[in-house]
Amino acid sequence: MTPDSPHAPKPGLLPGERLDDLLTDQLKIIQSPEVFSFSLDAVLLARFATVPPRGRVLDLCTGNGVVPLLLSTRTAAAIEGIELQPRLADMARRSVEWNGLGDRLTIREGDLRAFAVAPPDAYDAVTVNPPYLPVKSGDIKSNVHIAMARHEIGCTLDDVAAACGRLVRSGGRVAMVHRPARLADIMEALRRHGLEPKRMRFVHPRAGAEANMVLIEALRDGRPELRLLPPLIVYGEDGAYTEELLDVFYGRRRELIDANAPSDDDAERGTGT
Amino acid sequence: MTPDSPHAPKPGLLPGERLDDLLTDQLKIIQSPEVFSFSLDAVLLARFATVPPRGRVLDLCTGNGVVPLLLSTRTAAAIEGIELQPRLADMARRSVEWNGLGDRLTIREGDLRAFAVAPPDAYDAVTVNPPYLPVKSGDIKSNVHIAMARHEIGCTLDDVAAACGRLVRSGGRVAMVHRPARLADIMEALRRHGLEPKRMRFVHPRAGAEANMVLIEALRDGRPELRLLPPLIVYGEDGAYTEELLDVFYGRRRELIDANAPSDDDAERGTGT
Repeated sequence: MTPDSPHAPKPGLLPGERLDDLLTDQLKIIQSPEVFSFSLDAVLLARFATVPPRGRVLDLCTGNGVVPLLLSTRTAAAIEGIELQPRLADMARRSVEWNGLGDRLTIREGDLRAFAVAPPDAYDAVTVNPPYLPVKSGDIKSNVHIAMARHEIGCTLDDVAAACGRLVRSGGRVAMVHRPARLADIMEALRRHGLEPKRMRFVHPRAGAEANMVLIEALRDGRPELRLLPPLIVYGEDGAYTEELLDVFYGRRRELIDANAPSDDDAERGTGT
Repeated sequence: MTPDSPHAPKPGLLPGERLDDLLTDQLKIIQSPEVFSFSLDAVLLARFATVPPRGRVLDLCTGNGVVPLLLSTRTAAAIEGIELQPRLADMARRSVEWNGLGDRLTIREGDLRAFAVAPPDAYDAVTVNPPYLPVKSGDIKSNVHIAMARHEIGCTLDDVAAACGRLVRSGGRVAMVHRPARLADIMEALRRHGLEPKRMRFVHPRAGAEANMVLIEALRDGRPELRLLPPLIVYGEDGAYTEELLDVFYGRRRELIDANAPSDDDAERGTGT
């Protein structure tokens, strides 16, 4: 899946950047503690999302491209990533190049609020790890790159849902990772833009602790019926990652879905209420 | 909390009825397999709901009164139950009488769609275990009592949310138990009627299985911020109830909340967005 191109020149690293291991299929990723490093959220999103075997997949708020890179191990689809910040889009592009994935992965610098495609060009699946925090005065970090990844500066939750609803085809899927505290807003925004929540999973740091992450997948024009998957527990009683989390992280368990009930809701297309 | 009244005559049982043990504070309840028997859902709701130490509490769709009876062990508030079906309201009234709780518990026969109170009389907390299933042709059980408890014949989800929003005071709480499949509808209906989801817990029959029950509490006029409590697992690997479930069931762990983060959202009253 990741053809090594030993003869192609590798793109260079900028000051402060380093090349990290994505721990899956020998993938590498360019990161920078001062600019952007991917988090567990993005990895879980890339495992949770339902992706078609081929077709077109889009990742919004792509950051340094971690989600497109990980998705490339799960599908032969053409994958695009959109990132508002030129510095991050450049990092993502160089990571794609480093992994020799330029034939399938495209990073676009752009604003999801303005990005549009004609219906026949609509995407089969959209993923997004948006900024989690509403903008309130006084709590914005001074580092603009990190602030924009955390706070709804470049786009609000409604902007994100609107873009997802506009860019995915009818019967296509949108997967998002977010904070449970925002869940009522998330579900309302998804529905407002024609996206029906169909599959949800909560991530708890420890058994017995409140969830601090939610993975949610919606179907464009789907009918209302939500499946609530088993909780994912990150740390065991010993303080180490649980076996399930490691399986997901290392790609041994690539699809973060419930094994008991695979379903193809695609058949629902057009039956939405 | 449950004054035995050995000298008061006990109400009689009708054909098919039996007197069951509520397993808490020597409470008894009249049930009938042909008419109505309470389920785990109602018990978990009665443990999950935040109830004021005194004041006025209302249980909608009260059935045979299981929720008011269980709530009576957690608060000194006056508790009312509303039930549409005369047969069930009568059972509930006789259970109240049997337990000598007539001074604090009142069962009203009535339709929640028509029931209204003046704002100064509004309730501090409302609980509801509504029928879960939308009405579709051909899937209604022939037993009308059981059909009405399962299907939205006497009231829809929106009717229930409207009644909750109308009957609870600003800053008061509404607790509901329902099916996760309906979650998007539930959250939308709650918000439509001024009820902001604040606390939610999913119940999974086994670890690793999808949730089949959701407990959700909303705050009238609250601001958006949801806490997602740890999952509750019903059965262990040995097929028996988990210790936590038994603790809840037997009232050893009365309040089904996360011990780490008690909060009094009452202060939020009037700050809703």
